Amino acid sequence: MRFITFKFKGQTFWGVQEEDGVYYSDKLVNVFPTLHSVIQNYGGINFFQEINQYIPLHEVEILAPFRPNKNMMCIGKNYREHALEMTGNDESQVPTAPVIFTKSPSAIIGPNATIDAHEMETKQLDYEGELAVVIGKPGKNISREDALDYVFGYTILNDITARDLQKKHQQFFRGKSLDTFAPFGPAVVTQDRVGDVQNLDIKTYVNGELRQHSNTSQMIFSVGELIETLSDGMTLQAGDVIATGTPSGVGKGFDPPKFLKPDDRIRIEIEDVGVLENIVG
Amino acid sequence: MRFITFKFKGQTFWGVQEEDGVYYSDKLVNVFPTLHSVIQNYGGINFFQEINQYIPLHEVEILAPFRPNKNMMCIGKNYREHALEMTGNDESQVPTAPVIFTKSPSAIIGPNATIDAHEMETKQLDYEGELAVVIGKPGKNISREDALDYVFGYTILNDITARDLQKKHQQFFRGKSLDTFAPFGPAVVTQDRVGDVQNLDIKTYVNGELRQHSNTSQMIFSVGELIETLSDGMTLQAGDVIATGTPSGVGKGFDPPKFLKPDDRIRIEIEDVGVLENIVG
Repeated sequence: MRFITFKFKGQTFWGVQEEDGVYYSDKLVNVFPTLHSVIQNYGGINFFQEINQYIPLHEVEILAPFRPNKNMMCIGKNYREHALEMTGNDESQVPTAPVIFTKSPSAIIGPNATIDAHEMETKQLDYEGELAVVIGKPGKNISREDALDYVFGYTILNDITARDLQKKHQQFFRGKSLDTFAPFGPAVVTQDRVGDVQNLDIKTYVNGELRQHSNTSQMIFSVGELIETLSDGMTLQAGDVIATGTPSGVGKGFDPPKFLKPDDRIRIEIEDVGVLENIVG
Repeated sequence: MRFITFKFKGQTFWGVQEEDGVYYSDKLVNVFPTLHSVIQNYGGINFFQEINQYIPLHEVEILAPFRPNKNMMCIGKNYREHALEMTGNDESQVPTAPVIFTKSPSAIIGPNATIDAHEMETKQLDYEGELAVVIGKPGKNISREDALDYVFGYTILNDITARDLQKKHQQFFRGKSLDTFAPFGPAVVTQDRVGDVQNLDIKTYVNGELRQHSNTSQMIFSVGELIETLSDGMTLQAGDVIATGTPSGVGKGFDPPKFLKPDDRIRIEIEDVGVLENIVG
């Protein structure tokens, strides 16, 4: 299923997207008010019996699918070519263990929402198209072989980054967490609707120009390995989000760099998962 | 006021600690079930009229005061002597901008709870006594001069760290976020009960041996400067937690290092704020 959160006549609902419409249920939204609460209670909900109200998709505004109750966990330099473009082709900087930082949930915006250029804070605004994993049940010390059993589904994160702040503060959190720096969505797509998660095409366009084009097969650490590492001593919870890193082709990787500016339109496409588009304001 | 969260007869309440007892209200706990929700609605609650049930302190179990709805924001190397002990006395490694990383709220435990030694994950378990700031109202682009108007109160964080994981993963998140790595509390003390926040003695004992002894006057970046930096482009929310960094005297700072081991007892004392004690298990 493709779960979305949307606004209709001033109210916020979650529902299941099918073709050009969305099915939802007033009654279920009363019990589980957010998609986050749906994910946390997934096993116990009978969606097919309950969800029988329909709205054509063009009548709703799609919002970010949900807000997790902790920071998004993000993986740095998880595509080899991106690790090289960020470090002046320094092979020794390709990670041998996942680089894990976080992004504040206060930065989340939905599809088509405006990314604040933050011109007072940064001169180096950058995009990063990423596959995001949504955890579906609690777990600790999960092996890579069992890891996908703990996944609810997949969505897209544009890991917007102020490169100058990322560098200035050493640790990445602040450069990654300014307001609107987490375009997220549009849908959380359950695993059964997604092919091999390690064989999905991923593309990022800026104003129609293809900037990033790779495949999740190019990840240094697979989704299974990331869940294995993160859950080693730390309990993952349903609704946790893991952003799996970005391929080469970010603005900073070009010479001269191609940083974002107001009115730029960023479009991220991930095979089977969807399209996330936002504009810089 | 000194706000605590506690267990009494199997139920969890929040209340106001006075001397050897705690005042609470069944009725208020129904409306505001957690101290986090109290902090988010603080202006609108009449505590003195409502809170009139009393329990002697020895009849309750004090828990962590609350769980924020995002990661704790933590400041690295915010005491000069600690920056030096961590970098082999390299003056160039004393930060010129705050180093900001985060710690998962899933790691939070209360006073007297057991810190898991995580012997499978780390051979370098370390303590860090820190003053933690609890934000009291939303704000963005806050000046250092106005910053304390946005503070609800203060408490203590033991920023438990696996030094080997901190290094292995480059970014600090994983080495700081294993389960039980965030002993937190015991009370959130409102500002009126705390003297000059930049003149508080801070001490950490391990098994009675004084390991850390400094004063918040020694912070490189004051609480006001930290709030100014963090809120520059990022909206702070009521209930957010900022841990202000640790003084010198961590286990890794000794030669040979004094890492923690099972049965070690760590006691952090901060003037006017309280005492946080935990044992390694």
